[in-house]
Order: sequence, then C-alpha cells, then structure tokens
Amino acid sequence: MPWSREEAAYRSLSLQSDTRIVFLVFDGLGDLPGPEGLTPLETARTPSLDRLASEGVCGLFDPVAPGVTPGSGPGHLGLFGYDPLRFPVGRGVLAALGIDFPLQPTDVAARFNYCTLDKDGRILDRRAGRISTDENQRLTSVLQNRLTPTMDGVEVLLRTVSEHRGLIVLRGRDLGERVCDTDPQVTGIPPIEAHGEDEASERTAAVVRQIGRQVGKLLAAEKRANGILFRGFDRQPEIASLSERVQLRPVCVAQYPMYRGLARLVGMHVPPPPQNLEAIPQALRTEWGSHDFFFVHVKYTDKAGEDGDFARKIAVIEEVDRMIPEMLDLGPDVVVVSADHSTPASLRTHSWHPVPTLLWSPGRVRRDAAKSFGETSCLGGGLGRHRLMYLLPLALAHAGKLKKYGA
Amino acid sequence: MPWSREEAAYRSLSLQSDTRIVFLVFDGLGDLPGPEGLTPLETARTPSLDRLASEGVCGLFDPVAPGVTPGSGPGHLGLFGYDPLRFPVGRGVLAALGIDFPLQPTDVAARFNYCTLDKDGRILDRRAGRISTDENQRLTSVLQNRLTPTMDGVEVLLRTVSEHRGLIVLRGRDLGERVCDTDPQVTGIPPIEAHGEDEASERTAAVVRQIGRQVGKLLAAEKRANGILFRGFDRQPEIASLSERVQLRPVCVAQYPMYRGLARLVGMHVPPPPQNLEAIPQALRTEWGSHDFFFVHVKYTDKAGEDGDFARKIAVIEEVDRMIPEMLDLGPDVVVVSADHSTPASLRTHSWHPVPTLLWSPGRVRRDAAKSFGETSCLGGGLGRHRLMYLLPLALAHAGKLKKYGA
Repeated sequence: MPWSREEAAYRSLSLQSDTRIVFLVFDGLGDLPGPEGLTPLETARTPSLDRLASEGVCGLFDPVAPGVTPGSGPGHLGLFGYDPLRFPVGRGVLAALGIDFPLQPTDVAARFNYCTLDKDGRILDRRAGRISTDENQRLTSVLQNRLTPTMDGVEVLLRTVSEHRGLIVLRGRDLGERVCDTDPQVTGIPPIEAHGEDEASERTAAVVRQIGRQVGKLLAAEKRANGILFRGFDRQPEIASLSERVQLRPVCVAQYPMYRGLARLVGMHVPPPPQNLEAIPQALRTEWGSHDFFFVHVKYTDKAGEDGDFARKIAVIEEVDRMIPEMLDLGPDVVVVSADHSTPASLRTHSWHPVPTLLWSPGRVRRDAAKSFGETSCLGGGLGRHRLMYLLPLALAHAGKLKKYGA
Repeated sequence: MPWSREEAAYRSLSLQSDTRIVFLVFDGLGDLPGPEGLTPLETARTPSLDRLASEGVCGLFDPVAPGVTPGSGPGHLGLFGYDPLRFPVGRGVLAALGIDFPLQPTDVAARFNYCTLDKDGRILDRRAGRISTDENQRLTSVLQNRLTPTMDGVEVLLRTVSEHRGLIVLRGRDLGERVCDTDPQVTGIPPIEAHGEDEASERTAAVVRQIGRQVGKLLAAEKRANGILFRGFDRQPEIASLSERVQLRPVCVAQYPMYRGLARLVGMHVPPPPQNLEAIPQALRTEWGSHDFFFVHVKYTDKAGEDGDFARKIAVIEEVDRMIPEMLDLGPDVVVVSADHSTPASLRTHSWHPVPTLLWSPGRVRRDAAKSFGETSCLGGGLGRHRLMYLLPLALAHAGKLKKYGA
C-alpha cells in the first residue's frame, strides 16, 4: 500500500519525544437524547471528565465519513489515525483478532455460522437456534477432527467464537480472499455455492465447497446445527505500524481480545489485560516508562448501548470517571477521550453519529466554552468537526510530536 | 504537476469580473488565551475589525491539515488557494525569496550557516557565535570573489541573509536538488559529506563538496566563522499562477521580502513595498484600477508572537485596525481578514491552531452571531471550519468570480 500524500507528510513531520499521550476510548460512547433530553454521557455525574473538558477542548469526529456507521475495526483504525476506507479490515480478520487467533499474513479467514437446513438443503434458521457456545465447541471439535485435514494442500482450521459463530482459517500457498459469502442472508433457499473472483480466490472457493459438502455429511444427524454458512472472506491488510507511521511507542490496555488484536495489528505492545476498570491505572503505571502512547479501551459502554440499557451506560461512564484522577496522577502530557463509534441505547446498535471527543493538554489548547463533556457541548467545541483519522495528529501536535511543515 | 480534480473544477468555474477582493493577512495572528482568558486579538480594541466581523461572517481555517504547524511558505500557499501538501516550498527557495534573489527555474538553492570548526574539523558552534550581518557580508564577499567562479560548468552565487545565515545558488545545466543537508544539526562531529540521491543531484553534490573544501582554506584564519553548513537544497516548484488557476489579476502589498517572493511565486504583481502600515491604503489606491485581488501582508503580529510579547501583538493589531476605514473607502467588494498560521505568544513559535478568519461582503454573506473578531467568536462562525486552501474560493464566490457548476 503506497503512502498517501498526507500520510507521508505526517510521517516526515513526526518526531520522538518523552511526552505521553493517553487515549481513553469508550466503545460506542456517542448516543442520542433520552426522555429527559440528555444523552447517557450528559446525564452521568462525571466530575473528572467535565474538568478535562472544561480545561481542554472538545469536538465531534466522524469515524469513517459522514453518514457511515462503522464496525469496531474501522472505528479503531480511525482512532489510530488510519483512513478506514484505505485499510479495510474484514469480518474474517476481525473474528480472528477477536479470539486471539495468531493469523499469518497469507492466511484467508472467514466468519462462519452454524445453521439449520431442511431436508432439501434450504436454510430454515441462519443461526441454528442460537446454539450455546458449549454446543458450538462440541460441533467444532467434531469437524476439526473429522474433516480432511488438508484439502488441495490447504490446511483447514476451525475455531469456536461464541453461540452459533465460528472462525475458519485456510492456510496454504497462493490463496485468494475474493470469495463470495455463502450466506444468502435470507431463509428458504439453499446456501450460495462458493466461487472466487480470480484464479487464486477460485482455489480458495474450491476448498470451501469441499468443506461444505463434508460438513453436510458429518452433521447430518444434528437436529439444529446441520449446516454451515460462510461470510467475510478476508486477509490481514498490509498496514504500517504506528511506530513506522509517526514514531510512537504505543501500548494497549484493553480487556477484550478484539481490541487487543486491533492494537496488535497497528504494532502496539499488548501486555496481559487488566482484570477490571480499577486495575487500569496500575496497568498504565507498569508501562509508563517504556511507552509514549497509551490506548485504553473500555468495552461496557457499547455493550450497554447494544442492550438498550440507558441506565447501565450511565453507570459505566461514572465508574470510568472515578478512575480518571488516578490516571492523571501519572502525569500525562495529553489526554484524549473519544470513541470508536456511537451506539445509541434507543437504537441498540452502532450508528453513524459523530463521536464526542475531548483533548486535554495544559497550556497548549485554545480553550472553548465547554464546561462539561457531552455530545451537545462538543458541538460548539474548539476541536471542530473532522474525520476521526485527524484526531491522532491533533494529539501528536499538542504533545510536541510533530515538527513544523516547511520553512 | 497535473491539476487535481478540484483545482480543475475551480479553474473551469472561474471568471473575470470587475469586483475587487482585499485579502488582509496578519502573519501569525492566531493565539492562545492569556491570563485574562482572552487572546491578543480578543483583547485588542478593534472597532473596524469588529464591524467587519459583525456585518460579515467568521470561521476557523487549518492552514495545512489538522495538527500541522506550517512554516511561512505553506501557510501562504494555503491562503492563495493552493494545497500546501501538493506544492512543497523548501528552505532554499524561501531563503532566495526572502532576499529578493531572482531565482531561475533550473537553479538549485540552499540555506547556509557559517559555523565554527575545531582543528580536527568537528563542529563547535553551528552558528559561528551568531556573527553580525556585517561580518557575514564581509565573509560572503571574500568567498564570492575568491571561490572558483564556475565549477564543472556550474556558477556559484553566494548571498548574505542575516547574522550567520546565507543563501547559495548553483546555476547550471541538469542540476538535481535532491542533495542531503551537510548540517548534522549537532555539534562535536564534522559536517556531513554532501551526496545526491540521483545522478543529476550527485552533480550538484560534487560542486557542494568542492565548495566546502575551498571555503575551509579561504576561511582558515577566521576565529569564529571558519566553516559552512548547508541545508534545504531545493528548486522552485512548478506552480501555476493565480491568473492561470482562477483568472485573478493579483497584486501584493507587503513590506518583507519573503512574502513579496511568495507572492511573485504565484504570479502576483509586486510593486515597491509600502514604507509603513499607514502607507498601505495609498499603495492599494495606486493599484486599484489595474487589479482585482489585493494581498496585504502585516508582519509584526508574528514577530510579537515569536518574541512572546502579548502586549505588542495587541498594539500591532490595533494599529492595523486604525488603517482599515481608509482601506474600506476604496470600495472593495469583498474583504477577507485571516492569517498564514498561529504564533501564540506563550509558545513563542508557530503552532498548529486554526487561524481566525472573517469574510465581509455586503449583501452576499449569510451573517452569523459574531459581533467581534476573535478566535472564540470565529469558533461559532458561519464560515465553519475548513482547510485554508478553501478560503480563496469562498472569497471568489462572494465576489461573483465563480460560475455555477453543472446545469
């Protein structure tokens, strides 16, 4: 992937310094107003976030582009300063990252679902009645043991993800990833026959068709999970690390595998996860001497949003807020608080709404009128409204990590 | 340099008209709040600027890209509607522009510093104790007279800039500009040996090495300035003029050579400089009949910022404000007030903060709530937040100099 003009510019301007940036990411933080007219972030009692917003500068950022609802992959790539439209991360790779599967650069990965087929091979249930993770593990272990282990020289690896969801990895030479989904996204018709868009991908598709036939026989006696649907065939993107791009020495403090995997994808150091929110400051302290960029990921705001649980989202935000003073005691030069996307509780899913963001950097921000951290106060904030990929350069600038451009 | 899609569009939409645009540029105007919470621009008593802001529309502009601190070259290219990332202007060319040196398209130019070397040829002082400009002139005259005038068919031209700083221009056929700096930016080691990144640049480097050796002998008896360090080898960018790009007939009213040089680079007419700020309206009057775009440059706001002198920055702004009514008496159709970058007095250097901007155009602006001209009022302004390269098209539009795009 050649560097864009802008990427090349930021790279050439970047420099190492002993200033430290904390990037605190609330997954799915952005929301819509509830019955009282306030969002969860605006409703929560957040003295520390409000202090940071008041002393710092606020703004709104579009994770991918206006109107685009991001998945977790693109949202985080935007946070890390990458243009998510230039570096697509597909479902297969994300599934691998999400279970800490050590993907190799030439592997082709895809998500699969167990499904229920009728006697004529038509799909009755695309999720096999949402079987339990235990049942998934039993089935996956059967398949992994009894499928022909190597087909046309291609090694087949299957892993449980959760409930009806799994990961398939095809490992071999010259495999293409441009294979269509076999999941038609509707019921009443048979799975789609896999085919590849080019010669290398057709080699992959041939293996996928073989797998489909063998799975049909091996699971014939199952009542619910007697078939399998694939989607999101994909390979790891070629992606320069944050150290190559802007000379950062980044570290990831995240509990969930997918975010740890995304951090690894951009070259972050990923130590063992903290056990809970209270353990985050100690995790930062351990890495403080050897890094200058600290990605802290909080998952539970997104989970609450997806569950439609407005009150729980408030509670999570308040819990994180209580942890912030201890984080500030470490003496960061720049603190950024932002999100990978919005997950409004009323919508119960990711959305396209821009993410509320604050940047705190004593003596170096042009302060704005925001006295608290919330979607509305961010609207008039001094950071303005940009694509999310520009947030990292702004943090670098405030941390003194970007030289002057031109004389 | 091929035209970008956007450049081609603006070009095809541009038309000549007898409306006039005044572009009043305060160098380094943007700032950070002082102890009272207000910036110099917000503190200054500026009845005229406030009237323009109140009747017009305000906004904030990022000179290059979010987080990027621009040098004077990129900042001004942005003001003139060019993407500074597409048209880099190096240190050597800026040095030539800065002393009104008539650079030819094939010349290779670089900045040089006189330096102090110890008896083993290691750098003791990269600035030769900041020798006086007079001493620089004496040394440069010695070198210009006694260096071999033409080396390998290449003419060598040396000029004093100021203190320890000078300009070197190499004039000849087929010279490349991709030559490394010989200034290692540290002391205790010898200067770096010049080398070129391609064949043409290696021809340049060979001449630079010869110059280095001869300078060593010619200055051997000097106590302080007994060596020379080069950086920023460069050629003039190929750049279409404002007349080619958008059919303007632009003129420059600026006191300082560098800004006059930048204006010349984009094809502006550059008459003799005004003697002081009060002389600006008269200078405009002289050119009023023959031009439609008037670039007025005020240097002293930047100087005050670099000196950390908050009070003097205020005084400069107030002085310019008093000149504005006489400027308005000329009857411009559009007045833009902006800056090439911010130079916060507290940071004493250029910064990445967006520049406060107003656009006044009676009957043609959609007014906003701004009642005065300042960083904070601009934050909520109707011009919004854009890259600086879009300010010129906005001025053209208000001046009726852009046709409808499409039917």
